[in-house]
Amino acid sequence: MSKTIAINAGSSSLKWQLYEMPEEVVIAKGLIERIGLSDSVSTVSFEGDKHVVVKDIHNHTEAVSILMNDLKSLKIIEHFSEISGTGHRVVAGGELFKSSVLITDEIAKQVEELSDLAPLHNPANVAGIHAFRALLPNATHVAVFDTAFHTTMPPVAFRYPVPNDYYEKYAVRKYGAHGTSHMYVAQKAAEYLGQAPESLKLITAHIGNGVSLTAVDGGKSVDTSMGFTPLAGVMMGTRTGELDASVIPHIMAKTGISDVAEVIDIFNKKSGLAGISEISSDMRDIIKGRAAGDAKATLAFDMFVNRIQKYIGQYLAVLNGADALIFTAGIGENSVEVRDAIVSGLSWFGLDIDESKNVVGADGVISTPNAKVKVLVIPTDEELVIVRDVDKFK
Amino acid sequence: MSKTIAINAGSSSLKWQLYEMPEEVVIAKGLIERIGLSDSVSTVSFEGDKHVVVKDIHNHTEAVSILMNDLKSLKIIEHFSEISGTGHRVVAGGELFKSSVLITDEIAKQVEELSDLAPLHNPANVAGIHAFRALLPNATHVAVFDTAFHTTMPPVAFRYPVPNDYYEKYAVRKYGAHGTSHMYVAQKAAEYLGQAPESLKLITAHIGNGVSLTAVDGGKSVDTSMGFTPLAGVMMGTRTGELDASVIPHIMAKTGISDVAEVIDIFNKKSGLAGISEISSDMRDIIKGRAAGDAKATLAFDMFVNRIQKYIGQYLAVLNGADALIFTAGIGENSVEVRDAIVSGLSWFGLDIDESKNVVGADGVISTPNAKVKVLVIPTDEELVIVRDVDKFK
Repeated sequence: MSKTIAINAGSSSLKWQLYEMPEEVVIAKGLIERIGLSDSVSTVSFEGDKHVVVKDIHNHTEAVSILMNDLKSLKIIEHFSEISGTGHRVVAGGELFKSSVLITDEIAKQVEELSDLAPLHNPANVAGIHAFRALLPNATHVAVFDTAFHTTMPPVAFRYPVPNDYYEKYAVRKYGAHGTSHMYVAQKAAEYLGQAPESLKLITAHIGNGVSLTAVDGGKSVDTSMGFTPLAGVMMGTRTGELDASVIPHIMAKTGISDVAEVIDIFNKKSGLAGISEISSDMRDIIKGRAAGDAKATLAFDMFVNRIQKYIGQYLAVLNGADALIFTAGIGENSVEVRDAIVSGLSWFGLDIDESKNVVGADGVISTPNAKVKVLVIPTDEELVIVRDVDKFK
Repeated sequence: MSKTIAINAGSSSLKWQLYEMPEEVVIAKGLIERIGLSDSVSTVSFEGDKHVVVKDIHNHTEAVSILMNDLKSLKIIEHFSEISGTGHRVVAGGELFKSSVLITDEIAKQVEELSDLAPLHNPANVAGIHAFRALLPNATHVAVFDTAFHTTMPPVAFRYPVPNDYYEKYAVRKYGAHGTSHMYVAQKAAEYLGQAPESLKLITAHIGNGVSLTAVDGGKSVDTSMGFTPLAGVMMGTRTGELDASVIPHIMAKTGISDVAEVIDIFNKKSGLAGISEISSDMRDIIKGRAAGDAKATLAFDMFVNRIQKYIGQYLAVLNGADALIFTAGIGENSVEVRDAIVSGLSWFGLDIDESKNVVGADGVISTPNAKVKVLVIPTDEELVIVRDVDKFK
């Protein structure tokens, strides 16, 4: 018996989940927020209780130290050495990392060097890695890349039609994201359908605050909607997805914004559902607004559904047909309305939802027996993939 | 009997075609290039001969005057007054112009005011309009908008998921382009299929140096791939189509380009087939390179086909199925290879090409009798639409 912890470090946050392995039982989990700001918040969920501490936490190294001491003081562990493995979600693995790797000094350096591709995330990931390696010198430390699953994309999918130099010299290409989630639900779908992953064509729709869709052929990602960064693809909670780049100079000329990075920031943080609805980036609020007859919320909902439908059509083209469409993540797992709106507009493709199965808490097939393309809901579990990957190196 | 001229003014060019109406017979046509530069070239094609004159032409007003005098000196007309109508292709009609209009001082001013949406084109269009109105004071002058056909798009299609202000204050939305061509081939397809346009769902693929696809429902455009400008949508001869906007600040940081407009210019002029193949923006050269085993030409071809296939899938989703796919414009009308590559990867949708019909010079249905979605080739004729629209106002 041994414990393994899954770590997801953001620019100012650190999410963790502690497992008893190989039983795959979650012992405790938590979230540290506002790292580097005043009044940071550390929350630990353990045995049904929530323990919240507010104090200034200056950096990720300090956050890791506080988390580890919390584990001891709450008697979740007795000694640090009980944790024999740590798994770190790394946002950008570039073209280098095609699967999870055991972390060495060299690997940590390479992750740091990839910061260009995820300037907010990779440095945080590296800070978390260093802190755990220092505190747990004898544990197995593994990096799990959000882009790894998408490294099987062919050039026709990952290349952008820009001058070749931009790819060769500056690494401009599609990397995708949410890879661990897409991989997990694709594997799970094969189990649910009782078929070998190699024999299946799937479209996995990770629909949360961030949204990405992936075309999975024979268990491998062959195209995905997120791009060079997570800005691309479909409309999201606060992000635009792809649009005509020509609007950027126009917006800059009209608003007087002089830095293009500021426009990209608006496209990332003030657009999507939030920009159109002017209510919220949260689909639950949009659905409430729509039910109350709010025109902007209705437009936001309709655009969101429309953009996802377009990507489903797109990936049916890429795959030349699919066996199943999988919904996962916050909205995909929980929104009966969104799933219904998406699927009911795609009947021509042979997608057909069974209303009695498309319910809250659905887990598995929700299409009718006659559906040509099956529809499934599968709760994602990125942390489980991470700790399983760690255990492969133990 | 009367003559009508169709005018297509670009930033440094003026293309024209003179018709005998209502017979719809082309009497002569020509092209003036390098307007505003040294050694401008005026070419007139008449009765099988080409007349070429090289001389400095300083602006569009001068170009119109030279063209009119050429018509007289070549005895194509005896008096200016024989031309009773002029039809002007206008690139940007914004949300204002939903169909062709008789040009008045007020209309000319409005077209000029829309220059924000087509900074290179609308001013040239207005210059052409003024010149013809001055020379032919008694003729019927009509503006035909490249965006008019797309004004039937619903907000869910034309709005971008950016803050509402950008739409409301700065007119940021999808306008589309090639409207006259999409409208023409959609109407023609209904004739070929012997069905009312109202009963048909069509995907029109205008594939030339510029490429756009349109979802046409009941004769109306409900979505189109070009956006705020013609940069958007699929990969083209020299344009990127849509991509992750985040690559822009990255490219600027890496290359030292300080003006975002310069990046957009590269996306418009040095990308697409030209950027990837490093051979040419012309599909005929790409096909030659691919046949010779050139890896970059092959990648360019494959990406081009892939992006069009994705839009076909997308519009099958938007329309929830389609009756027919129409190929038109330079590549769409003439490239057997491109049509074959696109359709052969989409068999799951019930697209099936008849190899014996998919030949050079094809005009009409090229799919097999069993195809669920018919495939047609229809030569486009934007000039004909323009002169027909002029004659409606005579």
